Amino acid sequence: MLRYAVVGSGAVGGFYGIRLAHAGADVQFLFRTEADADAVRALGLDLRSPDGDLLLEDVHVARDWAQLIPCDVLVVAVKATSNADVLAHLAEHADRLLAPDGGILLVQNGIGVEPGFAAAAPGREVLGGLAFLCAHRIGPRQVEHLDYGTLTIAAHAAEDAAAGVTPLMRAIAADLDSAGTRAVLDEDLVRARWRKLMWNIPFNPLSVILDATTDELVADPATLALIRTLMAEVAAAAAAEGRELPPTLIDDLVAATARMAPYATSMKLDADAGRPMEVDVMLAEPLRRAARAGVAMPSVAVLHSQLAFLDRSRESGL
Amino acid sequence: MLRYAVVGSGAVGGFYGIRLAHAGADVQFLFRTEADADAVRALGLDLRSPDGDLLLEDVHVARDWAQLIPCDVLVVAVKATSNADVLAHLAEHADRLLAPDGGILLVQNGIGVEPGFAAAAPGREVLGGLAFLCAHRIGPRQVEHLDYGTLTIAAHAAEDAAAGVTPLMRAIAADLDSAGTRAVLDEDLVRARWRKLMWNIPFNPLSVILDATTDELVADPATLALIRTLMAEVAAAAAAEGRELPPTLIDDLVAATARMAPYATSMKLDADAGRPMEVDVMLAEPLRRAARAGVAMPSVAVLHSQLAFLDRSRESGL
Repeated sequence: MLRYAVVGSGAVGGFYGIRLAHAGADVQFLFRTEADADAVRALGLDLRSPDGDLLLEDVHVARDWAQLIPCDVLVVAVKATSNADVLAHLAEHADRLLAPDGGILLVQNGIGVEPGFAAAAPGREVLGGLAFLCAHRIGPRQVEHLDYGTLTIAAHAAEDAAAGVTPLMRAIAADLDSAGTRAVLDEDLVRARWRKLMWNIPFNPLSVILDATTDELVADPATLALIRTLMAEVAAAAAAEGRELPPTLIDDLVAATARMAPYATSMKLDADAGRPMEVDVMLAEPLRRAARAGVAMPSVAVLHSQLAFLDRSRESGL
Repeated sequence: MLRYAVVGSGAVGGFYGIRLAHAGADVQFLFRTEADADAVRALGLDLRSPDGDLLLEDVHVARDWAQLIPCDVLVVAVKATSNADVLAHLAEHADRLLAPDGGILLVQNGIGVEPGFAAAAPGREVLGGLAFLCAHRIGPRQVEHLDYGTLTIAAHAAEDAAAGVTPLMRAIAADLDSAGTRAVLDEDLVRARWRKLMWNIPFNPLSVILDATTDELVADPATLALIRTLMAEVAAAAAAEGRELPPTLIDDLVAATARMAPYATSMKLDADAGRPMEVDVMLAEPLRRAARAGVAMPSVAVLHSQLAFLDRSRESGL
């Protein structure tokens, strides 16, 4: 198995890291506070899951980047709002830390996040990870897994070209398979990111703005019509970047969401916890890309303005 | 002076009715509950105002439409969400109640409300009233006036034609002038309504959706840009109905709002009080008219969907 280091040991990083380590992979976990690191050293990492609970004892804990030892895959699972900090550390440590044929697996929302990581780690592969996972962190050392878990992986290439399936992607998928977790390998990172945005762009902002769960949003005819409009705008922007999404995708996503259990989106969890929201990678960057490609996303622009206002209001304590 | 009857003795109907009665006009006030009617009969109507408090004793109170006696002007100042009820009573009582050269003064938000009243009161003039007034009802017999008070009046005509200034409009304006209240007579009702919508369409929904006051909304660059986009969509829809609004109006409204005291919009007051919101006349009808005229209002459509969802969520007690 590959050797991993997880930066951002929250719900997402914790879920995949704990499963990989439990399956036998060498996994380091970076913790930002001494208190969290101490708790994990003492009691291990705990994954509560309907698939079976896992307790990981003797966790390989690092307190800062200097303590991380060389590995094959750096799993970056922080919120995109913390990327500036991670990129600064990565630029300093990538060469020492990552095997020459290793890479970064960036498990994040949004679009356009990979080029910054490629620049900070020259010569290393950068993979985008798109988690279809419902989980949350319930304590410094505990992750609660509620549902799903599939990780879609695709490789970044210069000029946003489709990079195909790489040996590193296959090796990670094999490890995840050993860990009982499904991986989907996608040949085209940008298409995969637009595809995920088609769900994220309606549901994440609306769940925050309207204080609603996904099932409420698809059950109401007014918000359902708006969701379809937003999805159509995403499809048009993706098409303008040469990524035609399947014509049935809107119907499929709506139907799948209607079948899902009531779901609090990641942005709703961030908002409720008083954390900054991923407004830039999930809304501003898609709007910038659409504008460059000559496509308007007027409904998406409204949500972006509303979220930017809410993000600032909450920041200023209003 | 003309003889008036006020249907909807809330903040708006109360403000104008009390001032007219205090200036000597014969004004009947219709109350929906016996308790409110009793309180007003016993203690009078009370207007608290920075222009001077007014206590109106010996109020002419009616408990239902059958108790109203003939008059010249029926002032309808209920929320548009109650129009169906008012129209049913009006169709039954208009002929008995309204002098042949009298009319209805419909002091309401939105657009497209007058034709229904014209149909319910054949042969009587229907005037639209656009209140620029900051006031609220603080009890069954008390209105608190905070600021402003100008009433713009314009006449409805078939096919939405501009009707010019009528003798009834002049007579009402003279009475309001005697009551120390400014009236502006507008020759074109539809233009006046679009003009007011240019302020109402951004500020009423956004104050509810984002739980914000008008000063917060114009102070933030993201919402300010959205407000300007919404206003531009309103201007385009008005132009498509042959009503060119002044090109400087957007800047003027933004600047005036920035100078205003923090202001809770009427829709925000409705939402906070658990009353239905005027979603139909303020958003759905403008969208229908724009669509008929071949103009898109994509940003307005987003606000409409969001408000429709919130209106239903609140109704169902969520």
